[in-house]
Amino acid sequence: MYDLIIIGTGPGGYEAILTALRKNLNIAVVEKGKLGGNCLNRACIPTKYLRSGAYQIEKLSKLKDYGINIKDFSLDYTKAFESKNSSISFLRNSLAQLLKSKKVPVYKGVGKIVDKNKVLIVKENSTTEIIEGKNIIIATGSVPASVGNLVPDGNYIITTEDYMERLSTLPKSMLVVGGGVAGCEIGYIAKIYGCDVYLTELQDRLLPSNIISQEISKYLLRKFKSIGIKTHFQTTVESYQIKDNSIDVKLSNGEVINVEKILLTVGRKPNTLDIDTIDIEKDSKGFIKVNEYLQTNYENIYAIGDVINSPMLAHVAGYEAKIALHNITSQEKESPNYDLVPWAIFSAFEIGHIGLNEELAKEKGVEIISGYYTYRFNEKAVDELEPDGYVRLYFEKDSKIIVGADVVGSGASELIHTISTFIKEKYTAKQVHDFIYFHPSLTEILAYASYDVAIGKLF
Amino acid sequence: MYDLIIIGTGPGGYEAILTALRKNLNIAVVEKGKLGGNCLNRACIPTKYLRSGAYQIEKLSKLKDYGINIKDFSLDYTKAFESKNSSISFLRNSLAQLLKSKKVPVYKGVGKIVDKNKVLIVKENSTTEIIEGKNIIIATGSVPASVGNLVPDGNYIITTEDYMERLSTLPKSMLVVGGGVAGCEIGYIAKIYGCDVYLTELQDRLLPSNIISQEISKYLLRKFKSIGIKTHFQTTVESYQIKDNSIDVKLSNGEVINVEKILLTVGRKPNTLDIDTIDIEKDSKGFIKVNEYLQTNYENIYAIGDVINSPMLAHVAGYEAKIALHNITSQEKESPNYDLVPWAIFSAFEIGHIGLNEELAKEKGVEIISGYYTYRFNEKAVDELEPDGYVRLYFEKDSKIIVGADVVGSGASELIHTISTFIKEKYTAKQVHDFIYFHPSLTEILAYASYDVAIGKLF
Repeated sequence: MYDLIIIGTGPGGYEAILTALRKNLNIAVVEKGKLGGNCLNRACIPTKYLRSGAYQIEKLSKLKDYGINIKDFSLDYTKAFESKNSSISFLRNSLAQLLKSKKVPVYKGVGKIVDKNKVLIVKENSTTEIIEGKNIIIATGSVPASVGNLVPDGNYIITTEDYMERLSTLPKSMLVVGGGVAGCEIGYIAKIYGCDVYLTELQDRLLPSNIISQEISKYLLRKFKSIGIKTHFQTTVESYQIKDNSIDVKLSNGEVINVEKILLTVGRKPNTLDIDTIDIEKDSKGFIKVNEYLQTNYENIYAIGDVINSPMLAHVAGYEAKIALHNITSQEKESPNYDLVPWAIFSAFEIGHIGLNEELAKEKGVEIISGYYTYRFNEKAVDELEPDGYVRLYFEKDSKIIVGADVVGSGASELIHTISTFIKEKYTAKQVHDFIYFHPSLTEILAYASYDVAIGKLF
Repeated sequence: MYDLIIIGTGPGGYEAILTALRKNLNIAVVEKGKLGGNCLNRACIPTKYLRSGAYQIEKLSKLKDYGINIKDFSLDYTKAFESKNSSISFLRNSLAQLLKSKKVPVYKGVGKIVDKNKVLIVKENSTTEIIEGKNIIIATGSVPASVGNLVPDGNYIITTEDYMERLSTLPKSMLVVGGGVAGCEIGYIAKIYGCDVYLTELQDRLLPSNIISQEISKYLLRKFKSIGIKTHFQTTVESYQIKDNSIDVKLSNGEVINVEKILLTVGRKPNTLDIDTIDIEKDSKGFIKVNEYLQTNYENIYAIGDVINSPMLAHVAGYEAKIALHNITSQEKESPNYDLVPWAIFSAFEIGHIGLNEELAKEKGVEIISGYYTYRFNEKAVDELEPDGYVRLYFEKDSKIIVGADVVGSGASELIHTISTFIKEKYTAKQVHDFIYFHPSLTEILAYASYDVAIGKLF
């Protein structure tokens, strides 16, 4: 009997493996697809790879300021797609090598929990095998959701997974349905590599979420317009017709467009169908119910990541994996705290958020004031030809303690971590301002964004 | 009578101006040269500008992985130099505009303190004027030092200031004397833009300082060798002879080289010559002596930045400016604490350091252990084609509290700030490891570099 069976090797399962091995547990791993799961193979990592490429393409035109005269260049999306695959293979193989060198059995197949200590593996060739474990972690992630009349067919109507894993040729034109994170990330990539991109969003802005400030949505939209992404808000797909290798799409605003592909980016749902035969409790949306220690209704069976109703983010899965492993191996149990989960988006801009913003503060009944500074006057941003962006810091009005931040611009996904520690340690605006930042760094924008609140206004 | 006279507008003086205006002080500014001082006009900012250019040139060859095929490109160093000047002008003008809009008098000339409340301004046309202030801040910075037989002539033997402010044409060949920060930064820029670079260093490694680990020096040296910078350690210039528009240099190791320029990067000395006629106390090296509140032997006269014997860094000057302003305007006085001054270097790699390393820990009698992780396996670094680099975290051996870090690689100058807060708040390895990092980010390398110490080793 294994100490622990981990079902799924995405960012949750992967972290669980690493921690379990370091704690010298005797583990087995069940994986129905590729090692690394969705994040590594079909989502975060390939998307950021291609986004980095798109960003570099945009940057080429600026390089003359460095005396770099590029006389001629061409783009080959398929080459980018293939290099992306190589990079992902490298990362996936490093995980495979680790499992091999630590002699961890990897059961290839779908895992189904048939007893509180037993997992039935259904292999690709339909043979089955039962393995036993003292503990089980369910980390089976999520799958793309679909919407209304739009059903993915893997060819004309595709999911983000189709796009990242199989679409090695850039379509000439594409309609992105959904202006959330995936829509804004992939829409940007496709546009910059040369695809004609349309985007529809049911709500009235990009990145519609209480996590993302209206100010960020507007900033990004201005950029989308300037690069020629055609956005339609409060708009849905009314009907479509496939003919002559393309799709005629009628939008709810009356417009008719013709595109090669429709990309569905309308969210994800937990991958819990058929996960067990022992009535592990799920909520109405299919999420597995867990208690504060991440245990299901069986105390030796834990669930982490996208299968439970916590923020659907890779690093949340990893964070929960650490907590589950702690709880499996310790008497004193820990609980997750989601207050300081960082958010980042890699679209035309890098966008980061941590803690509260205006909308979240209002929901929580916290009165806030904010401080602002732009990248345009930050010396490092100027040196790196990255003048687009800003930082907005939010402070509790009376105490002037920092409670949140929005960051748009180069390095946003890194800067939010320093801010996260400030929030965690309840720094006042003056402490944020007086902190010793390297000059020139992007992080020192925090000193300037806290100046008004900490010391007083300039005007 | 002004509330405050600020002599010098570098990073110390500039920050003093900003803070004083926000505190509604009635100020006057004295500046003998360009607004922004050495950092903005001749050091940090222009160096990072040209370094960003050099780094982009190196990156061009990798871009084929993004499907970007650059058929042909050429380099024009003079264009880079001129764009650098434009960017600096933009930043300098924004300071000028601020002073103008706030109606702050700027006295152009050399300021000499002739009474504890009086500054004599000696203008360029030799006329003089005396202004009076309740308080005075001396922020006159530093000037390049010279060494032995090498005396800068502004043409063949040049300083870093000559290089950054006047050398608009890249020399064909150059000897960099000194392998410290400026030598490693400018040597890299010149080499990548096409100059044949030699580098001599008196000691046995690059960046010789107890702040910089041997491991960093070796990592950088490998790269320098791979790009063809010719390094000579434990070597000095024995003699040189200028003829036919070039210099024959005989090194102490017997080698003879011929170069167009010799760049002196052998440190800086405080700019305190002739600063006063009232016996403001200085130490044997010329640094102005200050007490724990940054006051000179006159309690209304403060000194900050390179003119006092604290780390010669722009952000230290800014930090001291804030403290001086606080002390000028408050009854409860503050003192600077230099334990968490961040260091960053922008050479072939971005290099960052904060807190202790092995050598500093030994000096302090602190027993440490360390954790390590490489950029090569970090997903964001892979996505951004930035696999070179590593993080080494240092922990106090018994408590496992983090006490320092070295970071080499993309974003190093940003990552050190998150680590700085961890050190400041005395996080244990487990707290560093359990912190919620965004995935994929470079900052999450910290979770992996703390894994061994926090949870246990993998092998």
